[in-house]
Amino acid sequence: MKIAVIGLGLLGGSFALEFRALGYKIYGVEANEVHAAEALALGLVDEIVILEKITEMDVVLLAVPVDVLDDLVVTVLDLVTDNTLVFDVGSTKESVCNAVRNHSKRANFVAMHPIAGTEFSGPQAAFQGLFKGKVTIICEQKLSNKKLLDKLLKLLKPLEMRIEYMESSAKHDMHIAYVSHLSHVSSFMLGKTVLEIEKSEKSIFDMAGSGFESTVRLAKSSPKTWTPIFLQNKKHIINALDEYITNLENFKTLIKDEKSTEIHAVMQETNYIKTILDK
Amino acid sequence: MKIAVIGLGLLGGSFALEFRALGYKIYGVEANEVHAAEALALGLVDEIVILEKITEMDVVLLAVPVDVLDDLVVTVLDLVTDNTLVFDVGSTKESVCNAVRNHSKRANFVAMHPIAGTEFSGPQAAFQGLFKGKVTIICEQKLSNKKLLDKLLKLLKPLEMRIEYMESSAKHDMHIAYVSHLSHVSSFMLGKTVLEIEKSEKSIFDMAGSGFESTVRLAKSSPKTWTPIFLQNKKHIINALDEYITNLENFKTLIKDEKSTEIHAVMQETNYIKTILDK
Repeated sequence: MKIAVIGLGLLGGSFALEFRALGYKIYGVEANEVHAAEALALGLVDEIVILEKITEMDVVLLAVPVDVLDDLVVTVLDLVTDNTLVFDVGSTKESVCNAVRNHSKRANFVAMHPIAGTEFSGPQAAFQGLFKGKVTIICEQKLSNKKLLDKLLKLLKPLEMRIEYMESSAKHDMHIAYVSHLSHVSSFMLGKTVLEIEKSEKSIFDMAGSGFESTVRLAKSSPKTWTPIFLQNKKHIINALDEYITNLENFKTLIKDEKSTEIHAVMQETNYIKTILDK
Repeated sequence: MKIAVIGLGLLGGSFALEFRALGYKIYGVEANEVHAAEALALGLVDEIVILEKITEMDVVLLAVPVDVLDDLVVTVLDLVTDNTLVFDVGSTKESVCNAVRNHSKRANFVAMHPIAGTEFSGPQAAFQGLFKGKVTIICEQKLSNKKLLDKLLKLLKPLEMRIEYMESSAKHDMHIAYVSHLSHVSSFMLGKTVLEIEKSEKSIFDMAGSGFESTVRLAKSSPKTWTPIFLQNKKHIINALDEYITNLENFKTLIKDEKSTEIHAVMQETNYIKTILDK
């Protein structure tokens, strides 16, 4: 089976590694020449090919930033054979689903979002094991050809992901705004706030503990990946941010007014997150 | 050498374990009877004693919530001998330093803040190794007796902490508001925001990845520990929160107005946090 991976960053590169280790021949398509050379040197792919080569592939995986994805998925569906499985790994799903909705080869496409990643990016960030135990969400699965969807599930099986289905891509985008995109904004702005104070208060970072590192970890993420995600999921991210800011303002007022009982109660209720995350 | 540890939670318990492993005899003082029994059963201390027993001690470590600390440190200084080292491990330093400023045994006291912890609390959360490689800040060191300060440094040496001095306890509190307390508020409010949306959108947490877990980790922290910290450090936390909320609002506007270049630039600048945290 010949698999093309378009975009050899953290996600594309890690999928390439996994599939290659399973014995499939992996063809990389990568616009960034430095990344292409790195991917080859790191053994993520067997070969670097031009996009047009995907006419010969059995599977095409799209792992590019979401602003490039919508046009690319149409081009890819135009090129591939009737039997080729095409799937993406973008963090937003409504836009890509809309882009292919009326395509004659819509059924060849599976809209997927693996909830896996690290704060690092590029081919060098790719590693085997990234997906183990992680959730991956498949949207609008009824619009995908049953046989090709089964092919994808079979391909993913050795990676030990937990497959979930979410019929509505719009609902996916709303949910993911809260449990992923909001965390990224929050982390970036926390990093920015502390970097700003650091300009006048040198060596403040000597005091940073593991708590700070944990909340600010996502602020190391790639702007190239995340700018288009924030823009595509604008509506839901703005809603989530509004609620988050309101909660921060209310908590600030409780502190200002020294409402110790209420502060304690809010934190205790939120401790419930333990039960949810540990289950 | 006889060491009393007052408060056998995460920090007190972990110090007790470390010192006990070094061969010192450890006496625990703990108001919560369940915690006292646990600490004994877990081997954190050799004995549980009443507060009045500290008259016989060489070292007294105060590891209680900061709202209890200020009165307790005065009581402790009243009781101990002229040769006893007394130190605390509270997350705020100005208030405790002010509480002892005019005490006749001020020089017996060292105001310390070990920047170490986890999201867990109570005697069961204590473990050896918590402090290794971590920074600990000593404030207003000139007001401490040189010999007793040296005694503390000698005691801490095997724990392999990085000792830093910050003459001004007020400055400590301002800095720590940014690099620790703000992270806690941010994390709690993130958890709260997502718990609220979860009420109407069931199973949203199935979509949570490691990024969310990392930013929300501190929302598991103890309200009993953190409520008094937020209140004591009110002024600086409110400033930090104001700046954080302004940054969130500005970023939201950039998303709303689809200012892709600016969004990218803000994130790229904030990526600088990598360089700082990894050094």
